[in-house]
Amino acid sequence: MPPSPLPFDPIREAGRQWEAHWGAETVAPMEAVISIVRAAQITVGRLNGALEPFDLTYARYEALMLLFYSREGALPLGKMGVRLQVHLTNVTKLVDALERLGLVERTPHPEDRRTTLATITAEGRRVAAETTQVLNAMGFGTEPLGAEELDAVIDALRALRRGAGDFDETAPADADDADA
Amino acid sequence: MPPSPLPFDPIREAGRQWEAHWGAETVAPMEAVISIVRAAQITVGRLNGALEPFDLTYARYEALMLLFYSREGALPLGKMGVRLQVHLTNVTKLVDALERLGLVERTPHPEDRRTTLATITAEGRRVAAETTQVLNAMGFGTEPLGAEELDAVIDALRALRRGAGDFDETAPADADDADA
Repeated sequence: MPPSPLPFDPIREAGRQWEAHWGAETVAPMEAVISIVRAAQITVGRLNGALEPFDLTYARYEALMLLFYSREGALPLGKMGVRLQVHLTNVTKLVDALERLGLVERTPHPEDRRTTLATITAEGRRVAAETTQVLNAMGFGTEPLGAEELDAVIDALRALRRGAGDFDETAPADADDADA
Repeated sequence: MPPSPLPFDPIREAGRQWEAHWGAETVAPMEAVISIVRAAQITVGRLNGALEPFDLTYARYEALMLLFYSREGALPLGKMGVRLQVHLTNVTKLVDALERLGLVERTPHPEDRRTTLATITAEGRRVAAETTQVLNAMGFGTEPLGAEELDAVIDALRALRRGAGDFDETAPADADDADA
């Protein structure tokens, strides 16, 4: 957040510059991207603030919740990377941090000793539930958006995510994907 | 992007878990935030890819464009931080990188020698125009979104940004703010 609010919307101001120099059709994509990037900063900043008392960040919370909702409470690290869409080195760091906090344990895969699983602990389940209640109570940092605005964002960005190849509901299901 | 698309929308799947465990009213804020964060990753990833041949990143490009559109082609580093909403240490790194590329020069402020200005060079102006044409041509990484979806995102996220104190059109204008 800036020290004090600007007396004008900086993204709308950029839009005016774009319209004058590059043509009206260039305005909306540029404004949408800057809006998305800034909205991510705002919401993740709020979530990080709320998670700080738990020594968690939004990224650690996401990893913890992935395990919380996995069928066995355990996932191979590589699979966590795919689902969280982060590189394996970052998954390793996230799991290291959660392990230090006692929320996750590393265990060998029962059928493949070369694969390491991250397994949520009882304390991890307790903290997952407690932090989720905190984040739900603060509307996940989306204030002051209402139901209609939230749905508009979700629907439009679903088309973007689908277009980027994040998911394809017509693809044949891989039994393995049901794990999480 | 994951190696292959998941056969289901992972955010919708999280929404189903939320509805079952935490109540229907908790679903939309959570889905909206994860959607925003993922959309930022997708679009910034695309922009970084397009800017790589210019040795630029989206963050460097934003800093360059701020100078490009400033009235004098020059701004104090502190003010750049406020406008870009990044810490001064990061502004310094961005300006260092742009200076190495010959796109920006550091100059002393004409009226206050303690203040350093970042000033866009002629080459900086050329590269700003060229890269903007490249990004405009690829719809700033927002494909496949159409005009209606882009406007829905812009409008909803403007309410979020205003609510977070980024701007306030009713605030008295500071003459200084008109610079950029």
